[in-house]
Amino acid sequence: MLAIGDELLSGRTRDRNIGHLAGLLTLAGIDLKEARIVGDEHAAIVAAVNALRPRHTYVFTSGGIGPTHDDITADAIADAFGVPIGHDPRVMATLAAHYAERGLEFTEARKRMARIPHGAGLIDNPVSKAPGFRLGNVHVLAGVPAIFEAMLDKVLPTLRGGERMLSVAIDCGLPEGLIGTALGAIQARHPATSIGSYPQYDGRRYSAQIVVRSRDRAALAAAEAEVRVMVTELSAPSPPTGK
Amino acid sequence: MLAIGDELLSGRTRDRNIGHLAGLLTLAGIDLKEARIVGDEHAAIVAAVNALRPRHTYVFTSGGIGPTHDDITADAIADAFGVPIGHDPRVMATLAAHYAERGLEFTEARKRMARIPHGAGLIDNPVSKAPGFRLGNVHVLAGVPAIFEAMLDKVLPTLRGGERMLSVAIDCGLPEGLIGTALGAIQARHPATSIGSYPQYDGRRYSAQIVVRSRDRAALAAAEAEVRVMVTELSAPSPPTGK
Repeated sequence: MLAIGDELLSGRTRDRNIGHLAGLLTLAGIDLKEARIVGDEHAAIVAAVNALRPRHTYVFTSGGIGPTHDDITADAIADAFGVPIGHDPRVMATLAAHYAERGLEFTEARKRMARIPHGAGLIDNPVSKAPGFRLGNVHVLAGVPAIFEAMLDKVLPTLRGGERMLSVAIDCGLPEGLIGTALGAIQARHPATSIGSYPQYDGRRYSAQIVVRSRDRAALAAAEAEVRVMVTELSAPSPPTGK
Repeated sequence: MLAIGDELLSGRTRDRNIGHLAGLLTLAGIDLKEARIVGDEHAAIVAAVNALRPRHTYVFTSGGIGPTHDDITADAIADAFGVPIGHDPRVMATLAAHYAERGLEFTEARKRMARIPHGAGLIDNPVSKAPGFRLGNVHVLAGVPAIFEAMLDKVLPTLRGGERMLSVAIDCGLPEGLIGTALGAIQARHPATSIGSYPQYDGRRYSAQIVVRSRDRAALAAAEAEVRVMVTELSAPSPPTGK
């Protein structure tokens, strides 16, 4: 995923779209492999898109497809693919009708939102009409979270999901330093699972949440059982004669 | 900036460190140019670090320096720089004292946190002792936000800040489609500024916030004045005989 926008790099706005996409892809059995954030810079967008699209099955972008001069994503995508870009007649018709219905002027700025690279398929925007588009494996979505999310709902059914990733989270009152070695050994014995450990700090003491993930239900259950035994054993108070 | 962690790509955890860093760098007059998120994968971390470090003055990473088997950032950084890694005696001493003081065992897992690439400088961790480190221009910080932030406070005074970026935000009740063309013309007339426009959607109507940024106070004021005139003019009701 590529999130585009100066505001994300200046700290004015915190990105919310990467986390949203991550959660929905996981549910769909698709692994998000990497995310990048770049500013509204033509060369940076082109370079990032061309780095990501040969490497991954699907690429998603957010941001930069609005009506103002700093909305340059569509042009950058066209350049990344080496295809021309122009006002798409389908989108011009949709937007003209949309603004006419509301008694609003179809300004030059608004017409910018009809600029779509040649050969791209459109992605419906049920919120504000100006569509996203798909070119090759790259899905170009809006940056406003409500619109990003609505567009993503249109895109998700078109993707080929993998087998759903199953996961179980095990709360552990112990700090990672006490479970690390044993947890590493469990991971080594269960290669069909991915075991993560996430430290939590409440300002006074450390604990951890252990997450076991697998696409294989039996492998998940076997690793989970070992983790639970380990947590119980390590949580038990030492016998009075213990070291 | 490179944020590291499977949990950020699965949607379990939303990254908070990129936004925090972005805001503080902006205050320090340093532009954050790009951010990436990768999982706990050795090759992905090495590739990202080696892509970022020749391209930027400073690089920051978050995550993956704890005591468990999935904490592989230090090893990946050592590989990225082609230097050996081992238990740093300074850190071993600090951590041994820290755990002894608390009557806690200095486990093998905890000793992992003393693994520091050769030649790295340490970054103090006032929260939980296990330090981050700096190798070349790469600053390796913890992923837990409270610790990331504390370490970053130690690092910031060591960075060479640029001239502080000044900015002004102008609320505009108009949608971007009505201001886009005029705003683009203002941007063209004021090349020493960077003018961004951020659409807002409250579920019913669109508005925009216009942000003018510059390192030059006079340039900022001149562009701001033009934006304010533009917003006022475009917000005024049309005269009754208008087109």
